[in-house]
Amino acid sequence: MRMRAAVLEEFGQPLEVQEVELADPKPGEVLVRIVNCGVCHTDMYTASGADPSGYAPAVLGHEGAGVVEKVGDGVTSVQAGDHVVTLFSPQCGECVHCVDPRTNLCMAIRAEQNLGHLPDGTVRLSRPGSGEDIRHFMGTSTFAEYTVMPEIALAKIDPEAPLDRACLFACGLSTGLGAAMNTAKVTEGSTCVVFGAGMVGLGAVAGCRLSGAERIICVDLSDDRLALAEGQGATDLFKADENTVERLLEMSEGGFGYDFTFEATGLVNVMAQAVETARMAWGLCTIAGVAGKGETLDVIPRWLITGRRVAGSSFGGVKGREGVPKLVDLYMQGEIDVDPFISHRITLDEVNKGFDLMHAQDGIRSVIEF
Amino acid sequence: MRMRAAVLEEFGQPLEVQEVELADPKPGEVLVRIVNCGVCHTDMYTASGADPSGYAPAVLGHEGAGVVEKVGDGVTSVQAGDHVVTLFSPQCGECVHCVDPRTNLCMAIRAEQNLGHLPDGTVRLSRPGSGEDIRHFMGTSTFAEYTVMPEIALAKIDPEAPLDRACLFACGLSTGLGAAMNTAKVTEGSTCVVFGAGMVGLGAVAGCRLSGAERIICVDLSDDRLALAEGQGATDLFKADENTVERLLEMSEGGFGYDFTFEATGLVNVMAQAVETARMAWGLCTIAGVAGKGETLDVIPRWLITGRRVAGSSFGGVKGREGVPKLVDLYMQGEIDVDPFISHRITLDEVNKGFDLMHAQDGIRSVIEF
Repeated sequence: MRMRAAVLEEFGQPLEVQEVELADPKPGEVLVRIVNCGVCHTDMYTASGADPSGYAPAVLGHEGAGVVEKVGDGVTSVQAGDHVVTLFSPQCGECVHCVDPRTNLCMAIRAEQNLGHLPDGTVRLSRPGSGEDIRHFMGTSTFAEYTVMPEIALAKIDPEAPLDRACLFACGLSTGLGAAMNTAKVTEGSTCVVFGAGMVGLGAVAGCRLSGAERIICVDLSDDRLALAEGQGATDLFKADENTVERLLEMSEGGFGYDFTFEATGLVNVMAQAVETARMAWGLCTIAGVAGKGETLDVIPRWLITGRRVAGSSFGGVKGREGVPKLVDLYMQGEIDVDPFISHRITLDEVNKGFDLMHAQDGIRSVIEF
Repeated sequence: MRMRAAVLEEFGQPLEVQEVELADPKPGEVLVRIVNCGVCHTDMYTASGADPSGYAPAVLGHEGAGVVEKVGDGVTSVQAGDHVVTLFSPQCGECVHCVDPRTNLCMAIRAEQNLGHLPDGTVRLSRPGSGEDIRHFMGTSTFAEYTVMPEIALAKIDPEAPLDRACLFACGLSTGLGAAMNTAKVTEGSTCVVFGAGMVGLGAVAGCRLSGAERIICVDLSDDRLALAEGQGATDLFKADENTVERLLEMSEGGFGYDFTFEATGLVNVMAQAVETARMAWGLCTIAGVAGKGETLDVIPRWLITGRRVAGSSFGGVKGREGVPKLVDLYMQGEIDVDPFISHRITLDEVNKGFDLMHAQDGIRSVIEF
């Protein structure tokens, strides 16, 4: 079929919205009509060329939600009409990681996905006319009217859930919620600090609240974003400055630091702050942001020896097919206020505007409406 | 009383064995006759002047075992004749950390101990004649015929346990055993890598074995030390080279790395290797070595995001008064082969020779016999 999609033709250049040919789903694959898609930093990061594993031409986009149009042979878990969230982090249910409760890092299609292929090593995207291959970004390619994806990378959600909100669970929001609820396993009555009040950080604030944390300090440079953090349950709003660590430690009980800290900025110096404000003796620092190429988190070992721990979180440790529908249900039950995250509604043709808004740190999320 | 002790008079100079005046124990303090004392890297590190928090003059030594001679007022948990191991990491049993099962970092006397004082802020050590104060190193000062220590810093052990072995539980051995058994909580059937086959690393190997690990790879540069690791239960002996990480990953199941890794060298580049060989998805890297001043462990955040965790361990997470007697009991039951760790037996007058042997990486531990 012929459809419109935003293609990364060349790193560092704007995406080009154009006609793209999409082949029928093969066995184990599903054709999805995308209804909404968030514009995420990872898309912008890859488009910029900064990601060393990036490839082009490719259709970007990974924060999608839509409706199943057609399924390939052997697909049993979804059918036409189902509402789904797209998963860049699939869940095959069978690999060494899927059968283990400790991790969500499904290995089933990792190698091919990293190359921009569907699981069989080929692509369904191509240029009309020439037939030149176009690759699938993160196995999702949701900056497009339609996409073909592996069955194991689709989470079937409550059909009542509005897809413009549901799409945010495809990446940033689940990453933040899960960092608190799955990776850190925030405990009731605990003290928490979340660095960064973007989509991931705000999700982490909500995750801390849902886990029963007593104190949730959100740290950011922007009053507007901090106001959003308050709406998600932050008990303290903290404007970052050059004395962030010292001031946070002073505010903590006994000056020891905090039970759980979360880094959601992708900046390695902020990661170090999150380590240093974790509580002596048992504090856990969870890194949820993605750092730039070649950057390192430099930790003074003494911070560790005195009892702090550091963990990382990918997609919030959420096993997507099981976990995303549950998080969407929490939203439907009124436990997560998703509306404030949608700062802009744009069309597919305006996708580069979504990047510009992100660059300008204007709002939390631009959501494409198809 | 007048006694002989090894005094650090000036950083970077040999210790001077001389007559020192030791005052009677005050309330809550205990006079201990030291029978044996290991010579540990931390003593040498402080003597060198590299430790920014070091002080002089001070009587060094912290890996001691001996017999209680006399107790101060109010001391109830030990009495004259009891056999004890000295604890640089005390256990008051009452502070916010002692009452919490997650940590062994007793806060009761930390500030004064760090200044070289006993808990009341004064010293019991002085120069004969002038009366000049001499400070207590790590609250222990066991390079001496006698020492006065806080009751809360003495672990009462089985009187049948030979004190030349028991003294090793005062620091290095418990640190290694505890890193595996308490901090990492190594699980049955797991795969482990221990970097460094010194006292701490060998203890960690034994701790992994006692925890039921299936595979225990010990990494070192020395065949002699690796042979000792085999005696403690290492299943694989690995000679480190410039491809250590790649080779270890190749040897691991699926190339994923190992469930538990331990760093016991104090070298930050080895710490990074321990992070990178921890298993993707759930591997825990435990840092037990003490890094040099100003050095940092530089971690590529991607290693964390893909599921590795990093923890630190101080004195193996062992709550000393409870934990050390239990570890000594394990030794008495034949579960830990301590004898091979004692490579040299020296007199107090030969304490600087102990440092020289350590510099030359000759053997594991020199034990002073008084």
